[in-house]
Amino acid sequence: MKTKAAVAWQAGKPLTIETVDLAGPRTGEVMVGIKATGICHTDYYTLSGADPEGAFPAILGHEGAGIVVEVGPGVSSLRPGDHVIPLYTPECRECKFCLSRKTNLCQKIRSTQGRGLMPDGTSRFSIDGRPILHYMGTSTFANHIVAPEISLAKIRPDAPFDKVCYIGCGVTTGVGAVLFSARVEAGANVVIFGLGGIGLNVAQGARMVGANRIIGVDLNRDREAMARKFGVTDFLNPREIEAAGGNIVDAIIAVTDGGADYSFECIGSTKTMRQSLECCHKGWGRSIIIGVAEAGAEISTRPFQLVTGRKWEGSAFGGARGRTDVPKIVDWYMEGKLRIDDLITHTLSLDQINHGFDLMKRGESIRSVVVF
Amino acid sequence: MKTKAAVAWQAGKPLTIETVDLAGPRTGEVMVGIKATGICHTDYYTLSGADPEGAFPAILGHEGAGIVVEVGPGVSSLRPGDHVIPLYTPECRECKFCLSRKTNLCQKIRSTQGRGLMPDGTSRFSIDGRPILHYMGTSTFANHIVAPEISLAKIRPDAPFDKVCYIGCGVTTGVGAVLFSARVEAGANVVIFGLGGIGLNVAQGARMVGANRIIGVDLNRDREAMARKFGVTDFLNPREIEAAGGNIVDAIIAVTDGGADYSFECIGSTKTMRQSLECCHKGWGRSIIIGVAEAGAEISTRPFQLVTGRKWEGSAFGGARGRTDVPKIVDWYMEGKLRIDDLITHTLSLDQINHGFDLMKRGESIRSVVVF
Repeated sequence: MKTKAAVAWQAGKPLTIETVDLAGPRTGEVMVGIKATGICHTDYYTLSGADPEGAFPAILGHEGAGIVVEVGPGVSSLRPGDHVIPLYTPECRECKFCLSRKTNLCQKIRSTQGRGLMPDGTSRFSIDGRPILHYMGTSTFANHIVAPEISLAKIRPDAPFDKVCYIGCGVTTGVGAVLFSARVEAGANVVIFGLGGIGLNVAQGARMVGANRIIGVDLNRDREAMARKFGVTDFLNPREIEAAGGNIVDAIIAVTDGGADYSFECIGSTKTMRQSLECCHKGWGRSIIIGVAEAGAEISTRPFQLVTGRKWEGSAFGGARGRTDVPKIVDWYMEGKLRIDDLITHTLSLDQINHGFDLMKRGESIRSVVVF
Repeated sequence: MKTKAAVAWQAGKPLTIETVDLAGPRTGEVMVGIKATGICHTDYYTLSGADPEGAFPAILGHEGAGIVVEVGPGVSSLRPGDHVIPLYTPECRECKFCLSRKTNLCQKIRSTQGRGLMPDGTSRFSIDGRPILHYMGTSTFANHIVAPEISLAKIRPDAPFDKVCYIGCGVTTGVGAVLFSARVEAGANVVIFGLGGIGLNVAQGARMVGANRIIGVDLNRDREAMARKFGVTDFLNPREIEAAGGNIVDAIIAVTDGGADYSFECIGSTKTMRQSLECCHKGWGRSIIIGVAEAGAEISTRPFQLVTGRKWEGSAFGGARGRTDVPKIVDWYMEGKLRIDDLITHTLSLDQINHGFDLMKRGESIRSVVVF
């Protein structure tokens, strides 16, 4: 079939809207009509050329929601009409990783997905017979996609696509880091470095599970009001603290009477990753890295920080098992336990997708969503 | 009363055997007749002058066992005749740390203990009226000591002092790191960097809980036979692997089909701490630092190691709550679940204590024990 898609022809160039040929689903595959997709920093990172694994031409996008239109042979868990969120972290439920019960990082189709291909090593997208690569197993910048069955989370049919698409990445990354990676308990003190979209989702995850103090750290005082709406109880600006002769680690230890029970780094800076660990409470504080640092950058600390009980950890896709946990997050949104509407600052058509990237680059959006 | 003790008058000088005045126990304090004490690297570290918190003159020693001879006012859990192991990590069961249920690092008497004093800010030891400092709240190089009630673990009366004294530090540090800090589960693969006394105790802890492969890493091939006695199933010598063009991290990942479920660093080198993390399995491998690095040294890695699911942690006194867990370890030794006798390579009199330090410095002992 033919479908519309924004194609990334090469690094550093704007996307162009094309009519693309999409081959039907093969065994274990599903065709999905994408109804909405967010524009995420990871798409921008790949498009910029900075991603060493980036390959072109490709159809980017990994934060979508849509409806199943056709299933290939052997597909048993989905049928046409089902509402789904595509998963860049699949959940096969049979690989060593899925069966470990200790991680969400299913490795079943990792090697082909990383090369922009379906599990059989080919692409379903083409233009004039020339293959166009998939991206992150999702390619949600296309109006129709083919994805593996294990890469699709079935969600309730009454959830609005233009909101729950954000659960495909940002919401789950933040909320999940609290619920599934750290498993924050009621009454805990939580510190969040960086109050962009991920940080706000960490905040509302912490609020949802009954955290006590939720301390937001950001250089931009303008972010305080929104942060408080998402659960932040204390806002600290490291620049203001330094101007007064202090430092952010000591300030956090003072505010929390000993340090954070849990801290989350949502910036991607190795400097704040260190602060995020060292502001943790002696004996038990756990620091979770969510942000992605630049290639080759390293984190450091004195081992004494760990020997005296702090733990340094990380989270990818919020520790969420996609098919199991993403539908729950959709439910929590529908039940009013999580806010998403406030975070969708711009809704665009596919033709406006490059404008969405510009808004993100200029820091003028929290999340732009493209609706088909 | 008068008692015999080895006194450290100043850094870098041998201990001298002295007759010391010991004041009786005050409120919440207990006098103990020490029957045996191990000589540990930490005593040597302090005696050498490298310990920035070292203070002199003092009576060192922190790995002892003995019998209660007198209790002060308000002591309710111990009576004369009870067998005990002194604890450099107390367990008050009422401070924020004890009540957290997340750490063994009781802070109740930390500030005075760190200064070589009893909780009331004074010393019970003196010579000719000149105070001699306590050390780590234990000072087991004295034939009699006074210690806080919360710093004494009551143990079964049939356990031999000259063996179970080693549970006061080394055994608990190694075995406890496996059982209490990491909580290794049956079937897990465990990697141990460094097969000295701590590493051997990690190995037997791993064996006790039913670990699958127990991989020992050491530059000294002579340690292999003893290591296998303590549960090590695979011995890897990084120097041999490098000579063959490989590296220890890749070798461990190959042997374990993906990496360690748990790794333990028992050397104190920041280089092996990094290897210990990076040899862990993607998704869930946890690396526990036990070794003490030189002052100011830092550990580093790429944050990607953590974001993809490895965790960097530490352990002090094996994560053991002294009064709760040390008696259990004594029981396990008495029941034959743990070996200690093989590790006590030298038994000395108090007069020979400096010889014990020499044996340790030259690497000729696993553990020397002084019996009174």
